[in-house]
Amino acid sequence: MGPHPAVAAIRLAVRRVLHDILDEHSRTPDETGRTPGRSPHDPAYAPPYNREPSPLVLVACSGGADSMALASALAFEAPRLGLRAGGVTVDHGLQAGSDLRAAEVILRLRELGLAPAESVAVTVGREGGPEAAARDARYAALDAAAERHGAAAVLLGHTRDDQAETVLLGLARGSGIRSLSGMAAVSGAAGRYRRPFLRLDRQTARTACLAQSLPVWDDPHNTDPAYTRSRLRHEGLPALEKALGKGVVEALARTAQLSRDDADALDAWAGRAEAGVRDADGRLECAGLHALPPAVRRRVLRRAAIDAGAPAGSLFARHIEEVDRLITGWRGQGAINLPGRVVARRQGGRLVIRQG
Amino acid sequence: MGPHPAVAAIRLAVRRVLHDILDEHSRTPDETGRTPGRSPHDPAYAPPYNREPSPLVLVACSGGADSMALASALAFEAPRLGLRAGGVTVDHGLQAGSDLRAAEVILRLRELGLAPAESVAVTVGREGGPEAAARDARYAALDAAAERHGAAAVLLGHTRDDQAETVLLGLARGSGIRSLSGMAAVSGAAGRYRRPFLRLDRQTARTACLAQSLPVWDDPHNTDPAYTRSRLRHEGLPALEKALGKGVVEALARTAQLSRDDADALDAWAGRAEAGVRDADGRLECAGLHALPPAVRRRVLRRAAIDAGAPAGSLFARHIEEVDRLITGWRGQGAINLPGRVVARRQGGRLVIRQG
Repeated sequence: MGPHPAVAAIRLAVRRVLHDILDEHSRTPDETGRTPGRSPHDPAYAPPYNREPSPLVLVACSGGADSMALASALAFEAPRLGLRAGGVTVDHGLQAGSDLRAAEVILRLRELGLAPAESVAVTVGREGGPEAAARDARYAALDAAAERHGAAAVLLGHTRDDQAETVLLGLARGSGIRSLSGMAAVSGAAGRYRRPFLRLDRQTARTACLAQSLPVWDDPHNTDPAYTRSRLRHEGLPALEKALGKGVVEALARTAQLSRDDADALDAWAGRAEAGVRDADGRLECAGLHALPPAVRRRVLRRAAIDAGAPAGSLFARHIEEVDRLITGWRGQGAINLPGRVVARRQGGRLVIRQG
Repeated sequence: MGPHPAVAAIRLAVRRVLHDILDEHSRTPDETGRTPGRSPHDPAYAPPYNREPSPLVLVACSGGADSMALASALAFEAPRLGLRAGGVTVDHGLQAGSDLRAAEVILRLRELGLAPAESVAVTVGREGGPEAAARDARYAALDAAAERHGAAAVLLGHTRDDQAETVLLGLARGSGIRSLSGMAAVSGAAGRYRRPFLRLDRQTARTACLAQSLPVWDDPHNTDPAYTRSRLRHEGLPALEKALGKGVVEALARTAQLSRDDADALDAWAGRAEAGVRDADGRLECAGLHALPPAVRRRVLRRAAIDAGAPAGSLFARHIEEVDRLITGWRGQGAINLPGRVVARRQGGRLVIRQG
């Protein structure tokens, strides 16, 4: 008898990502100049015993159902592919007893056979709001842990439901398709972070934990209406599903993928177009900008503003629209102030964007 | 004392669109070969009395607040710009007494000074569901009315709220950014349809009716939970606003505009790219397709499928993904069946998409 279907599903999702990691690892010489061995799904593969330590894959685990399911699947699949598997839990220090909670997660990770299994305590600042600050602190800690252990990758337990929520959060910013593209399956420096569950629903992860008798922890933050994502999860998205039908989560996740590809293609176009609209002194020519499609022109303007020092996170669609009117609606208007003390002005057929 | 701010807002929105219509009318010789006069905001303009009938602008009016506000603003602004203003109401025959309702709307349009003011009865079919069938019948009737009266344009009362709902409906299809781009400010054959209120919220239209003591009719369909749009309006969108904040409607409307420009740019790119990936016999070359960015390649494939006879409305993202795997994930798989009996297969480095 095979494993429960939910367990089979989470293992398959993890196995695919581990294959990718191994493929890349076997192709690319690592930083020490060694060329690691072949991929284990190559018939000529032999596990690298007695040669060099096999690559380490870490799982970031909060103790919740998604990341516990991920940890269990990693613990099952990694040894079969000649990989080492470890786990990290981040103690955000935001709730009383969070250190005990972290210690409990470590115990569970060890029971699954993960080594190293470590807890990292972080201090959450305030910048960008509570959710962004916690996220920043968490990724900094995960980055440091990955460096410390020389990990080839860090797996994250985000599911298709998380992706749908992220798309809606991006939609609420109204800043275009890049913000609709959600989380990438591969992200971070050198593709460190991997999200094997991005096409899997949250319920499958939960069922897989149940089927394996894995105790899971329900983070009270996930149901606290003080958090935007929690309100979205428990009120916004269910209401949207009630109005639009059960396929909404899947549709949002698909929108993320399509939007990401579209945004990548348009960014590439804007990169090429930018070179063509600069004069010999590197200044942007208004006539050249005017001839570009609006979608490409706006991206060139956005890049130019960021190059001049405007912080990307504070640069909204309405800022770029205003700069765009210097090109498409020119009637002698004055300089446009952008975030980061960047100023855009039109001077003699050129668009000048600089700090000061 | 000037008009109520809401009345000023609806008039300004309509005035801008009428200026656009006049600009185009004064530039383009019409179908009879006459070159109409200058635009009235040109200092040399004289209204075309005793020369030829001035251009006619129609408003499509259901009697609801949005389109009554639109009718009142058109009645006020059109004569000041030397334009004629008329109105059409469509009797869908879906509710008992809809003919009396239509007659009442006509009375109100006449009271506003609109001429012609006419009611058109249509028969609503079943194709594509009740909302799509009613919409198809309505636009067919409006097209016919515009032709019959030689109207330069037909104004539609869609507001920013309608736009936000349309974006969410598109999102639920999960078929990419074109379906997120909502309704265009200008659409239809030769840009016949104009939506002056696309950046105005529904509440402003309602307030403008109140301020002008215009009676409005609340269509029971708009609150009937049997209709997807109605559920979205009364449950989905309010829940989303509660979770994400009041700016959601504006963010969705801005997303529509940005997505539309992005989709236009990518469609143009795909149009150019397609020529480059066809061989001397016009067949699609797999190697050329493989080299395109995924966003562009998928659009080329979609165009090819539609050219081969697949109905655009039945061709979903998952169909195109499957065809795409003939290029990017080739492992000798068989033919892919697409809607409209179109079949895609890979043959000797070429992709063949055709009916049968």
